[in-house]
Amino acid sequence: MTTKRPEFEAIFQETIVPELIAEVHKTGISDNAVEWIAKNLTHNTMGGKYNRGMTVPDTYRILLGKDKLSPEEFKQSAILGWCTELLQAMFLVADDIMDSSKTRRGSPCWYLMPDVGSIAINDSFILESAIYILLKKHFKGTSYYVDLFELFHEVTWQTELGQLVDLLTAPEDNIDLSRFNYQKYYFIVRYKTAFYSFYLPVALAMYQAGIATPENLSRARDVLIPLGEYFQVQDDYLDCYGDPEHIGKIGTDIQDNKCGWLINKALELVTPEQRRVLDENYGRKDAACEKVIKEIYLELGLEAHYQAYERKSIEMIKELILKVDESQGLKQDVLLGFLNKIAGRSK
Amino acid sequence: MTTKRPEFEAIFQETIVPELIAEVHKTGISDNAVEWIAKNLTHNTMGGKYNRGMTVPDTYRILLGKDKLSPEEFKQSAILGWCTELLQAMFLVADDIMDSSKTRRGSPCWYLMPDVGSIAINDSFILESAIYILLKKHFKGTSYYVDLFELFHEVTWQTELGQLVDLLTAPEDNIDLSRFNYQKYYFIVRYKTAFYSFYLPVALAMYQAGIATPENLSRARDVLIPLGEYFQVQDDYLDCYGDPEHIGKIGTDIQDNKCGWLINKALELVTPEQRRVLDENYGRKDAACEKVIKEIYLELGLEAHYQAYERKSIEMIKELILKVDESQGLKQDVLLGFLNKIAGRSK
Repeated sequence: MTTKRPEFEAIFQETIVPELIAEVHKTGISDNAVEWIAKNLTHNTMGGKYNRGMTVPDTYRILLGKDKLSPEEFKQSAILGWCTELLQAMFLVADDIMDSSKTRRGSPCWYLMPDVGSIAINDSFILESAIYILLKKHFKGTSYYVDLFELFHEVTWQTELGQLVDLLTAPEDNIDLSRFNYQKYYFIVRYKTAFYSFYLPVALAMYQAGIATPENLSRARDVLIPLGEYFQVQDDYLDCYGDPEHIGKIGTDIQDNKCGWLINKALELVTPEQRRVLDENYGRKDAACEKVIKEIYLELGLEAHYQAYERKSIEMIKELILKVDESQGLKQDVLLGFLNKIAGRSK
Repeated sequence: MTTKRPEFEAIFQETIVPELIAEVHKTGISDNAVEWIAKNLTHNTMGGKYNRGMTVPDTYRILLGKDKLSPEEFKQSAILGWCTELLQAMFLVADDIMDSSKTRRGSPCWYLMPDVGSIAINDSFILESAIYILLKKHFKGTSYYVDLFELFHEVTWQTELGQLVDLLTAPEDNIDLSRFNYQKYYFIVRYKTAFYSFYLPVALAMYQAGIATPENLSRARDVLIPLGEYFQVQDDYLDCYGDPEHIGKIGTDIQDNKCGWLINKALELVTPEQRRVLDENYGRKDAACEKVIKEIYLELGLEAHYQAYERKSIEMIKELILKVDESQGLKQDVLLGFLNKIAGRSK
């Protein structure tokens, strides 16, 4: 039985927020600051899809070979899940400022909320600190407490490096397609997204299940990172070709000068004349320029290139999964479940 | 023998930067990102007074009862010192954005440097991550590795809470003196400054010296936090009454709507008429308004109030120090040295 949103959200509302607020109260801080922190926590951590967070209890359950976790097992695992959601919240609050984004999950971005502004930077730090308060409170006695610390720090660092390369490669106000290449693209995908979104939640569950040997961790990573790459390429594809009604947003990658899969594929295939057109129209906040780019994509047959990429990726990842050694307790089912959720998604 | 700047800086340039850059290189990141990180590290971490950082080896030496540390002892201790400087760098980079500051240590603030802008937010995160990379690299084998982690996280969290109360109490664009009071003032001082500037470096040296029992830590904290409060009150005093030539900057607390010691003391002493004048002139970016505030301070005799506060504080802290139990290896000399450096300073 996979985790349901309401049971996962209940852990946040009934355990995590009250515990963190109790920590804050201990300091004798003013009431308006307590309210601020409560609002920061709920506004920025709740309301997403919880794919990353719910992966932790889902994976833990499969690794234990159970149909259902005990309430205590679920709670511990969901807390680790919420730590991944807090990490994501920390990044999103900060990224939205750095990207000048306007909305997030249908609400204004946190920094655009009344009275927030640049206080959001400190709020982002506070979301990160919450992770380590929770780890200390709930995992200090375990044999893998230090591993959890180190894992979160490693993944945080990787994500920051990915964000840096993204910011340096595709600044919104300085368009230069010659900076784009596949090497940078895959670095950004792996570092900015795949480690924290794919590797982190599975590794957390592996520690909890007591099977996080170095061999198992590297086996999991060797599948999850390619899986994360495939996921992001899909995301880039859907940004341009997905149904806005269905994916819940209108893609803006072309206007935002994103170093995405489609533009990199296009740069690989263009004639010099088409390249000139890309240079003149990519990254402009202008619907007409965007249309010109989409026409070039059409001329280049990017949709078909994507379909071919997708078929090959799924096949390659399946092969990787079927070769995973289960002798130390890692299960192919964890990875297959992940792949099935993602393969062929349209949102 | 106290630590000299050149030997402390040499550890940064010859050990810390090369090690962190080697970590970055391992990922296969692009060269421009490596250069960016190197510049982030040096621009934001070097060039200060290093009071916090050099306190670690200075305290460690006194605790070991040595005249001089061995090169290996000094290096380990200086690395912890640089971790405190990295923590400060992380906060300063972010605070300068939140406070719209213009210069820092005589250079433009990092976020105002060419091409930086809001990338500074991610750079601030990277400075924090560097701390945990260094701790893992140099202290993983020690019995107090987890303690170092937890200490840095606790102090980071405290500093964030202090910064939040500061931002909520004294936003530059929304002046309301009725929000100010001593309780908030001392909360901000303790949380935003005293824990990381005074307690952290001494606690680090205590862990390194193997005397960080819970009793010793709380003995040290009970002196260092009042000492940090006194230091900040001095800072507030010098901002208004110090010699700009001597302290190296022109004070801006009045114009910046800071919740400082002087305005809180003034609010305690004013007549209703004087209060009205404060309300109308505090926190305005206007030299004439600032002058009016300074006249009220004069009428209230704030300088004399400060002198009385200072005498009382020094006396109180001396008494606290002379009562410190040295039976578990903590030394009064560590704390006395600190007090002597600070008492009566004019910059």
